[in-house]
Amino acid sequence: MERVAVGLVGLGIVGSGFYSLMKHNGEHFASKMGTSAEITKVAEIDTARAKKQVPKDVLVEDYRRVIEDDAIQVVIELVGGTGVAYDIIRSAIERGKHVITANKALLALRGAELFALAREKQVELKFEAAVGGGIPIIKVVRESLVGNRIGKVMGILNGTSNYILTQMSEKQLPFEQALKEAQGAGFAEADPALDVGGGDAAHKISLLASFAFGGWVDYRQILCEGITMVRPGEIEFAASAGFAVKLIASAMLVDGKPAVTVFPALIPAQHPLSSVRNEVNAVFVECDFLGPALFLGRGAGANATASSVASDLGDLVQALMLHAKRGGYPFDPRRTLELYPDQKMEYRFFFHFITENRPGIWATVTGCLAGNGINIESVHQKWEDRSKPSDLYILVDEAREEQAKKALREVCSASGISSDSRFYRILPL
Amino acid sequence: MERVAVGLVGLGIVGSGFYSLMKHNGEHFASKMGTSAEITKVAEIDTARAKKQVPKDVLVEDYRRVIEDDAIQVVIELVGGTGVAYDIIRSAIERGKHVITANKALLALRGAELFALAREKQVELKFEAAVGGGIPIIKVVRESLVGNRIGKVMGILNGTSNYILTQMSEKQLPFEQALKEAQGAGFAEADPALDVGGGDAAHKISLLASFAFGGWVDYRQILCEGITMVRPGEIEFAASAGFAVKLIASAMLVDGKPAVTVFPALIPAQHPLSSVRNEVNAVFVECDFLGPALFLGRGAGANATASSVASDLGDLVQALMLHAKRGGYPFDPRRTLELYPDQKMEYRFFFHFITENRPGIWATVTGCLAGNGINIESVHQKWEDRSKPSDLYILVDEAREEQAKKALREVCSASGISSDSRFYRILPL
Repeated sequence: MERVAVGLVGLGIVGSGFYSLMKHNGEHFASKMGTSAEITKVAEIDTARAKKQVPKDVLVEDYRRVIEDDAIQVVIELVGGTGVAYDIIRSAIERGKHVITANKALLALRGAELFALAREKQVELKFEAAVGGGIPIIKVVRESLVGNRIGKVMGILNGTSNYILTQMSEKQLPFEQALKEAQGAGFAEADPALDVGGGDAAHKISLLASFAFGGWVDYRQILCEGITMVRPGEIEFAASAGFAVKLIASAMLVDGKPAVTVFPALIPAQHPLSSVRNEVNAVFVECDFLGPALFLGRGAGANATASSVASDLGDLVQALMLHAKRGGYPFDPRRTLELYPDQKMEYRFFFHFITENRPGIWATVTGCLAGNGINIESVHQKWEDRSKPSDLYILVDEAREEQAKKALREVCSASGISSDSRFYRILPL
Repeated sequence: MERVAVGLVGLGIVGSGFYSLMKHNGEHFASKMGTSAEITKVAEIDTARAKKQVPKDVLVEDYRRVIEDDAIQVVIELVGGTGVAYDIIRSAIERGKHVITANKALLALRGAELFALAREKQVELKFEAAVGGGIPIIKVVRESLVGNRIGKVMGILNGTSNYILTQMSEKQLPFEQALKEAQGAGFAEADPALDVGGGDAAHKISLLASFAFGGWVDYRQILCEGITMVRPGEIEFAASAGFAVKLIASAMLVDGKPAVTVFPALIPAQHPLSSVRNEVNAVFVECDFLGPALFLGRGAGANATASSVASDLGDLVQALMLHAKRGGYPFDPRRTLELYPDQKMEYRFFFHFITENRPGIWATVTGCLAGNGINIESVHQKWEDRSKPSDLYILVDEAREEQAKKALREVCSASGISSDSRFYRILPL
């Protein structure tokens, strides 16, 4: 049986998971592929810890020894971050090696350059594990949907945020407490900013959108709001109106341009995304021929991520054994797509105004909405203690983002209304 | 740009759908693949109808003109059935052509022979569209899960049955009426036997199980029960106990052997499969590294099926352009797997006894259960009109299939108890 030599860089949580997968299932993998893949070098700076898992003759401290090893055909970068990981991937591609990574932050930041370089050097830069964890969504979009035009890709792409929102919803916890529980349960990192701020989901949706729409989508141009401001009372009211609050990353074509957004949205309780709980990820795709489809699975964790790395490795082993270079490319990394302006996007909105409880407030609020051409669908006032602020929930008909923003600004500048008032966008079924 | 010549045989619903996909999205497909695929011949015996869709110089009546055309590298068989379709596929493979089919009935019946022949001739026999319609489950199992050992594949694989059960559940319709509605809505054929009898789901799960477990699974050895006996009252009671009734095709490893079954099962309301409505299909997979994952989409219809045919064509175009023959094989068609005996399978059961309403019935029923070592979990008697038969619902602890069958047989042979009494198996979360 033939053999492909693989170099693994980074033996943290994901790296260890993948190493363990190959130890347990390497023979199974080889029997399915007709070719074995052997990890001939593992680079890890924390050699003391790595020694417990990796034989001495395989372990190296400096990743350059992996890159400079001409026998190694595939480099797997599982270091993470946007620093040394960039050097690893770039130098591996330059040496003509195929690369697998799970590094969404780096790909979102410098993917246009790295994908273009890979294309120039005729090697593959694969990243199934970077989006949706174990869900095989990149392969599905790239290969299974090749006969379709994709209209929409949206999903729950950050497990930490979904875990927190689920706990807030099911246990009526405030954000801070749900975050602490998530950290305790191992579903949130010590510094959760990238997760709860929406940045991680923005990285992932920019990559998905690039593949779906054929050009580069720059994540820095994406409207991105996180979940730190979400209140349990808002989730509760949304539920009573038939909606779940989920951090949704979405990319859809509007007038031929991709509209790409990340924000906590209200989605109808009947939508399959609304019942996706805790750390699970899910991706919903809408295409012209396939129609709607949903893919659901573990969005993070060492083992699920390792499964996706193995999927990429299977593709590369196949290609290497066939001495094959890919023909087509799923997108052109050198062509940055112009996004549809988010201010022009239309949604139904769910406003939450926090107000004093006195005459004139209703007139102000409804006046500002009317003045911006926004039609009220239904209203609900939470009436508790006259000395405390009152919660005014208003669902409105479709309006443009800019209309809703202007109305909110005007209401918030009126006396007796808290500047903590806000709106949520409602995504259709 | 290079070009792959494709021959399409059969221009019925699915064939027309695929022809239309290539007409609409052929250029898009070519830009993604770096190679165009052109349908150079279409064979259809109903030439009068086909002429409306296909140019005269492309249309032929006799499929042999497609097989004998040496320029054609890929033959797509969308005739269906187990007669001429077999000749088409066999002769295409023998001429060294790759084949794509959506024909689950034929593959389940003669796949062991056809896959072995394809392997011998070093061509591919692809069938993404045969299982799960537009859901890319074959590619996922074959490629994305290559690093995993699959423990379980189960799902809703027959859209007709699921449509009928959904209507029975939501509108409290009896089976016959729901079937008529399904036929009216175009979700059931005039002869629905293969769908509602479970045969179609058995074909599909045998193919999925073969890929998942590495050898040939003969669908004729599968325990297969359809939905014709399901009563709306049973669905209603199951719902009140927290379960949905779904036709579930399931394949899982028990003591190293595949246990493969098709039957209407009770599944917990929290399980994602329980909320799959109407004609939608869904496949749930459980693996050692990926963990649980769910794939959901349209299980039938011309367009969704065409999407899967295009996915297979994409793979073949890629392979042809690389002048590549596959290395490994996902399963050995010449090795028929011994199945785990279904009589030894253990489930919780839900019994429905239809009885006269008189003293001694309870003693008989509970005595037979006890005599077979079956422990009662909860009971419910539907009490309406003393002159009519009474419905006795009993949920019991885990027991072997053979125990439940023996107990049911004994109860049914007692006086005052209808032989229409039955049980449902409860599948765990």
